[in-house]
Amino acid sequence: MTTREECLARDARDPLAPLRDEFTLAEGEIYLDGNSLGPVSREVRRRVDQVIDEEWARGLVRSWNTAGWMDAPLRLGDRLAPLVGARAGEVLVADTLTFLLAKIIGGALELRPRRRVLLTDAANFHSDLYIAAGMARLVARGVEVRTIDRDALAAHLDEDVALVMLTHVDFRTGEMLDMAGITRAVHDAGALMLWDLAHSTGAVPVDLTGADVDFAAGCGYKYLNGGPGAPAFMYVAPRWQGVLANPLPGWLGHARPFDFEATYESAPGMRAYVTSSPSVLALGALEGALAVFERTSMAEVRTKSLALTDLFIELVDQALPGVVEVVTPRAHDRRASQVALRHPNGYGVVQALIERGVIGDFRAPDICRFGFTPLYLRYVDVYDAVAILVDVMASDAHRAPRFAVRRAVT
Amino acid sequence: MTTREECLARDARDPLAPLRDEFTLAEGEIYLDGNSLGPVSREVRRRVDQVIDEEWARGLVRSWNTAGWMDAPLRLGDRLAPLVGARAGEVLVADTLTFLLAKIIGGALELRPRRRVLLTDAANFHSDLYIAAGMARLVARGVEVRTIDRDALAAHLDEDVALVMLTHVDFRTGEMLDMAGITRAVHDAGALMLWDLAHSTGAVPVDLTGADVDFAAGCGYKYLNGGPGAPAFMYVAPRWQGVLANPLPGWLGHARPFDFEATYESAPGMRAYVTSSPSVLALGALEGALAVFERTSMAEVRTKSLALTDLFIELVDQALPGVVEVVTPRAHDRRASQVALRHPNGYGVVQALIERGVIGDFRAPDICRFGFTPLYLRYVDVYDAVAILVDVMASDAHRAPRFAVRRAVT
Repeated sequence: MTTREECLARDARDPLAPLRDEFTLAEGEIYLDGNSLGPVSREVRRRVDQVIDEEWARGLVRSWNTAGWMDAPLRLGDRLAPLVGARAGEVLVADTLTFLLAKIIGGALELRPRRRVLLTDAANFHSDLYIAAGMARLVARGVEVRTIDRDALAAHLDEDVALVMLTHVDFRTGEMLDMAGITRAVHDAGALMLWDLAHSTGAVPVDLTGADVDFAAGCGYKYLNGGPGAPAFMYVAPRWQGVLANPLPGWLGHARPFDFEATYESAPGMRAYVTSSPSVLALGALEGALAVFERTSMAEVRTKSLALTDLFIELVDQALPGVVEVVTPRAHDRRASQVALRHPNGYGVVQALIERGVIGDFRAPDICRFGFTPLYLRYVDVYDAVAILVDVMASDAHRAPRFAVRRAVT
Repeated sequence: MTTREECLARDARDPLAPLRDEFTLAEGEIYLDGNSLGPVSREVRRRVDQVIDEEWARGLVRSWNTAGWMDAPLRLGDRLAPLVGARAGEVLVADTLTFLLAKIIGGALELRPRRRVLLTDAANFHSDLYIAAGMARLVARGVEVRTIDRDALAAHLDEDVALVMLTHVDFRTGEMLDMAGITRAVHDAGALMLWDLAHSTGAVPVDLTGADVDFAAGCGYKYLNGGPGAPAFMYVAPRWQGVLANPLPGWLGHARPFDFEATYESAPGMRAYVTSSPSVLALGALEGALAVFERTSMAEVRTKSLALTDLFIELVDQALPGVVEVVTPRAHDRRASQVALRHPNGYGVVQALIERGVIGDFRAPDICRFGFTPLYLRYVDVYDAVAILVDVMASDAHRAPRFAVRRAVT
């Protein structure tokens, strides 16, 4: 079994170790919930101060031009693009994930007008299911949202399927899907592919270009550390730009917004999918948060992420055999940056861990989720977290939670 | 003609004068563009710091509960409600104005299923026209957006009209419409009324309850001073809550968001119209900005606003007869908190004023807009602004603008 000393030694030679200093983390706390909400980084603080004190307070309305507010959704998109294997001009940062999914779904259904099925995973995150149903209900011709077991996808890919929407990493189990293989199968069936990257971006390497993906969207507040309710992002493959219509158009997506024309005419490129001005403060925070990723690479992040989750699984296997079940796939190519443990009293387990400074979260009915973020987590944190988990499981601490039902955001 | 000394004397006895200290304003600048983007106030700074340093940095994911992030859209709605004559539980703060209009339009068209016309003002702000057309195109049955001259509204109110959408204050001219009278006429025709309050909220008293309005929405970044791209707000009359469906549903509007149910079931009340988590930083800034309004009343704000615009019009009339045209109505009941001047070289006029520290803005083809915000503007500012305008008009300064076309946000 790996010892605490070995963990400290691995931390000492970890090339990502210096990045931890960029983050504000509470003394004595081990934060394993960056898959829900990432922490504050130094550059976020600096950039928000700059937006408020210089750009807003001094520049006032002029900053729409002089401070680049007008172009921020595209500028941030270009900066984020390398994290998902996209190129400049292919990513937009704006709104929230659900609104961006609405835009893509509404637009994409029009690209396959004779097909009437939107196929998605029954285990998908619920907001994705709700907005899919909402858009299907809105659009003119009867579109059916068909929720299936994702493992049986191939059997459902018939010629009635217009769009397949899947989340790349399961929010409960942390299982990662085969983006390239599934996208190929969907294309072979003549359908379009939309990936939700909420639990992927900043956590695992993603290659949207290489996988020939049509559309993707993700959020900014999990592994990107952009802050609570941070703006989201969307990707549209170059072949669909100018083809995919924005079903929720606004003046900032107009070809000539300041001509105030009565009729909407879409701007070229990704600007077409801007609806209105997103919060400049929120964009500033996310822009600051992206800076730390420019000091490493997703390959380096992935190497450490797998080492952290391998270590966690190894220690849990050895210390708690038969006590908790590791739900997350053990195969590297099916595991993202989160490990889920199943226990009948999972809620109590998570509450007892939080009381002892190990912050994870619970997903009904019995999943304890632990996110591993290589930018600020140490090997010794993993060791200590398991030691505390062992202590919790050995005591009665997890049997009588004293809190009301906890409401964290996925 | 009112003298500068008289203006100073009026400032000395102005009950709102102390509020100016709450704002960060540049020395030597007269900011007449609060109708586009309000300035930073002290409480905004304090509240954003609190969100980042205490709630996000220390509380992390727990703050969704412990810092009230989960309820922020409703809490801010309740706080904003008195400014628009609404009561607690009738206003929601979230998203952007265009998305909130999309939700209301999409929902409201379903409430009059046998009527197929959405009536709006040809001079409405363009994003409103675009999203109306977008939603009309999305919804199942053919809905027509009919843009008319608002003065001829009565003639168009036939039994095919489902929804009338008007902006209470014209973004170009500053003309204010008769909310109660128009709403009554719309109701008499069996249609529903949606008011856009972008240029009204925080600028003029609004009485949504008294005017029996069905739906309203407005933005947070103009007279409310919530910051660039601040969250917007929407109002749904109690009689429509639980009836008006949210056509863009998300998990945070679900009756039991943390039960992760496959099927959407709307939460009761205004929570039904929450889609996803808005930026908590942006909500914090807006919450801070609302504080200053609690030290005054909209009646007091209105009294000073009319005094400021009266003074501006009086001085312009006397100093520049025949040189510029006052486009804004002179009647108090048709004037909001902005004065628009028409001049063939309006663009050059505004640029020359900006060079001299008087910040207004230009709207094509020939409108110079000046917003008057009683919270931080002094009578002497109005006097000095007109003196500088007189100087600009007397010289050639306004004939040769040296800037590229300026892009400010309405």
